[in-house]
Amino acid sequence: MRYLEDFVVGEILRTPSAAMPEEETLAFAAKYDPQAMHLDHEAALEGPLGGISASGWHTAAVVMRLIVEADVLLGGPILGLGVEELNWPAPTRPGDVISADLETVSITPSRSRPTHGVVRIRVTARNQDGATVLTMTPKLWVARRPEQS
Amino acid sequence: MRYLEDFVVGEILRTPSAAMPEEETLAFAAKYDPQAMHLDHEAALEGPLGGISASGWHTAAVVMRLIVEADVLLGGPILGLGVEELNWPAPTRPGDVISADLETVSITPSRSRPTHGVVRIRVTARNQDGATVLTMTPKLWVARRPEQS
Repeated sequence: MRYLEDFVVGEILRTPSAAMPEEETLAFAAKYDPQAMHLDHEAALEGPLGGISASGWHTAAVVMRLIVEADVLLGGPILGLGVEELNWPAPTRPGDVISADLETVSITPSRSRPTHGVVRIRVTARNQDGATVLTMTPKLWVARRPEQS
Repeated sequence: MRYLEDFVVGEILRTPSAAMPEEETLAFAAKYDPQAMHLDHEAALEGPLGGISASGWHTAAVVMRLIVEADVLLGGPILGLGVEELNWPAPTRPGDVISADLETVSITPSRSRPTHGVVRIRVTARNQDGATVLTMTPKLWVARRPEQS
């Protein structure tokens, strides 16, 4: 697996891509974000996003899957302590295909837990037209390489 | 619907509660966060959360539904421009029942769009034992009350 010592600030990893078909955007919104702007084509045209869109939480969930698929910790558990500045600069539309760039922005050994540290990753997800649909900076909890004895 | 002028800093709204049964935590994790700590009881015991847990993105999605159910804008569209400081202080476990407090922390008329403004809401979600499982501060895009002519 990948340890704290293996990260390099500025390094960028590109995830695979994922489609967000309408069937899935509707099912997610019906369950977790049941609002007309995500469920009803006609009403969404009059809504704040000018047409039907995926829930932003659906976009975030798909980006999480892409991060798992990118295998950033090479099999180690990908545990986010939290996320700074989650934003949705443009809506995701049903049928969009998204992928993300993952840039290492800081690497900080833990003071309280010498076995671990925190890696902050700048995530930028774009759709098939290059429009940025999600940005966030999760703080990942990453194991340090065990010392050789 | 509820307009920017109807918000009061410090006001707290309590959402309804929602169960997160294991069937649902497993289905969400299988689709969006396929990691052993969310899917496999035995492997999760050895993992960083000391037992199986829901994906943090699942908790966030359920909290979104609770915000919609709390009807914070009285029928107006609940549109988050972004979220500051999303954190998961404790894991959500399968079978947990969560609810959230929504506290208005700031109300800012938009400079560029005089018809709207931004309301920052501090969200604190707790489980049935009172442990905080999610905090975040979304920025909601809220219409201003139309002027009487």
